[in-house]
Amino acid sequence: MDIEPARRPTLKDVAEAAGVAVSTASRALADNPAVAARTRARIHDIAAGMGYRPNEQARALRRARTNTIGVIVPSLVNHYFATLVTGIQEGAAAAGLTTVIANTREDADSLAASLQVLADQRVDGVICVPHEDCADQILALHDAGLPIVLIDREIPSGQVPTVVSDPERGMHDAVRLLAETRALPIGYLSGPTTTSTGRQRLETFRTACTAAGLPEQPVYLGGYEQERGRAGAADLLDRGVTALFAGDSMMTIGVIEECHRRGLLIGEDVAVIGFDRHPVFELQPRPITVIDQDVDAMAALALQTLLAGIDGQPTTSTRMHTPTTLITRQSTPGALR
Amino acid sequence: MDIEPARRPTLKDVAEAAGVAVSTASRALADNPAVAARTRARIHDIAAGMGYRPNEQARALRRARTNTIGVIVPSLVNHYFATLVTGIQEGAAAAGLTTVIANTREDADSLAASLQVLADQRVDGVICVPHEDCADQILALHDAGLPIVLIDREIPSGQVPTVVSDPERGMHDAVRLLAETRALPIGYLSGPTTTSTGRQRLETFRTACTAAGLPEQPVYLGGYEQERGRAGAADLLDRGVTALFAGDSMMTIGVIEECHRRGLLIGEDVAVIGFDRHPVFELQPRPITVIDQDVDAMAALALQTLLAGIDGQPTTSTRMHTPTTLITRQSTPGALR
Repeated sequence: MDIEPARRPTLKDVAEAAGVAVSTASRALADNPAVAARTRARIHDIAAGMGYRPNEQARALRRARTNTIGVIVPSLVNHYFATLVTGIQEGAAAAGLTTVIANTREDADSLAASLQVLADQRVDGVICVPHEDCADQILALHDAGLPIVLIDREIPSGQVPTVVSDPERGMHDAVRLLAETRALPIGYLSGPTTTSTGRQRLETFRTACTAAGLPEQPVYLGGYEQERGRAGAADLLDRGVTALFAGDSMMTIGVIEECHRRGLLIGEDVAVIGFDRHPVFELQPRPITVIDQDVDAMAALALQTLLAGIDGQPTTSTRMHTPTTLITRQSTPGALR
Repeated sequence: MDIEPARRPTLKDVAEAAGVAVSTASRALADNPAVAARTRARIHDIAAGMGYRPNEQARALRRARTNTIGVIVPSLVNHYFATLVTGIQEGAAAAGLTTVIANTREDADSLAASLQVLADQRVDGVICVPHEDCADQILALHDAGLPIVLIDREIPSGQVPTVVSDPERGMHDAVRLLAETRALPIGYLSGPTTTSTGRQRLETFRTACTAAGLPEQPVYLGGYEQERGRAGAADLLDRGVTALFAGDSMMTIGVIEECHRRGLLIGEDVAVIGFDRHPVFELQPRPITVIDQDVDAMAALALQTLLAGIDGQPTTSTRMHTPTTLITRQSTPGALR
C-alpha cells in the first residue's frame, strides 16, 4: 500500500497564514517592490516557517502559462522594426515561446486595442514600442502584474522596464565627421517630437553641433516616413545645405530618393548620413554612412528582461541603454566641400 | 403595461425542430457544403416555417466574436510580406478588426505552433501563407469551421480558399523582353521547389523561354534569401549569362549585391529583372525592372474572402488569382547585348 506523501504547503496556504491575498503573497515572495518591504519580510518568514518551496509554485505557474509573448511595433514596412521583431522572436523561439505580433501603424488607438487583445489572450508578457497617448494603459497593465518591457521609445513614468539605444556616441561622431570635412551647413531631418526618440535625437544633434563648435544648423521637423524624408531633403537642399543627416531609416530612404530625383551624386555633390542598417543603404554605388543602433543587442536585452519578469524576478534597473556606433561609408567622403 | 413581444425563434429552436445540432443548423443555413444538400434544404424549410430570421442569429454571433483576425507569414524582414501584412491589416482596421501577426521564419513547426495559438485565442479567422508540411493541420482547422484563407502559396488539397498571384503574364513579358533585346543567355534564380511559388515560377520561366523560341537557359536552384540570391548571381555570372532574372525580391537584392561587388554596371554590363516592389529596386542609379504582384489587390481579395467566410457566406471559388505585370525600368535597356 502506498503511503500518502505529506501535503506540501501551497502559495494559498502561505497567503492564508499571512492574512493577505494570494497575489500579494506571490509578489512578496518575488520581492516585488509593489509590496511594502516590511510585509515582504513577514511573508518570507511565514513561508519559510511552513516549509513552503517557491519552486513548486513557480512550476505550477509555468504550467498555467500560455508560453506566448506579444510584441507590439508601430510599423512592419519599416525594416528597423521588422528586424527588431524578428530578433525578439528568434530569441523567444529558442526559449520555447511563440510570439504574436501587432503592428499599430503609429496609431495610439490601434496600440490600445492591440494591448487589450494581447492581455485578453493571456500572453505571458509583452514587449512594446510605446505611444505616449497609451502611457496610462501601459502603466495599468504593468501594475496589474502583466510583465511588460518597453523598447525603442519611452513613456514619462519611468516605472516600466525600458530598453532604448543611446544616440549620443553615434550622433556626436557623425556631426564631428561632417564638421571636420567642412560638409556644412548640415541639414538635420528630425523625427516627430511626439516620440521620445524624435525629441532625444534632435536635442543630441543640437548638443553635438555645439560641441563641434558649429552655430545653429538648419532643421526640418519630419516624421518616420519615406515621403517626409524626401520632402525634408528637398526643403533643406533648397536652403543650401551641403550635408543631409536623417534621424531614422525611413527618412534616410526619402533623402536618397530626393538626391536621385535631383541627379545629385551622393558622396560627391552632397554628404548623407542616415540611421540604421537597411539593404537600401549598402546597395548604393556609394553606400550610405549610418548610425547603427545594434538592433540585435536591443532585442536580446528586452527579451532577457521580459523573461526575468515572467519568472517573477525583481527588476534591478528600469532604463537600459545600448550604445550607437557610426559606420562610415562612402556617402561622407573626407574630400567633400 | 407593456405587452411582452412574441419571442422570435432562435437558431437553437430551428436545430431542435430539425433534430440536428446547432452547429449543423448554422452551417446548413449558411449553405455550407459540409452539410448534405438534402439536409440543408430541409433545415431551410423548417426555419422558414418557423419565421426564423437568420439576421438576428448573425447579430448574436457577431456579439460573440473576438473581432480579431490572425495573419501568418514566413518572414517580416522580407518587404513583400511586410507589405502584404500591412495591407491586410489596414483593410481589417477599416472593418473594425484588430490583427495579430505571426512570423514563422519559413519554419513548419513555428507555423504549426502559431496556428494553434491563434485558434486557441479564438481569432475570428486566419489569413496564412502556408507551408506544405502543415497542410493537414490547416485542413483540420478549416474542417473544424475556422474561417481560413491561404495567400501567396498553395497546399495540395484545393479545399481551402486561396489567393495567389499568377506569374504568367509578368514572366512571359520579362522573358520576351530579354529575348528581343538579345540579353542572352538568361540566368534564372529559382525559389525553393518546396514552395508552390518556387515550382510554379520555375515552370513558367521554362514555358516562357520555349514560347520565346529560346533553348533551355541556365537555372540556379536558390532560396528566398538575399545570400542565396548573391551566391546564385555569382554562379550564373561565372557560367557566362548576360541577364539575371530572380524569382523573388530577396534574391533580387542578392543579385544587386553581387553585381555591385563585381563592379558590374546593372543595365549596361548585365541586365537584371527581379520580383516585387521594394525601395532598394527603385533607389538605384538604374532602377530595376520588376514583376509586380500587386500586393494590395492580393491583400484586399484575401481579406474580403475571409470576412465573407466569417459572416458564414458560402465560398464561390477556392482558387483566386491576381495578375502580375512587368514594370520596365533601366536595368533592362533595349540596347543591351
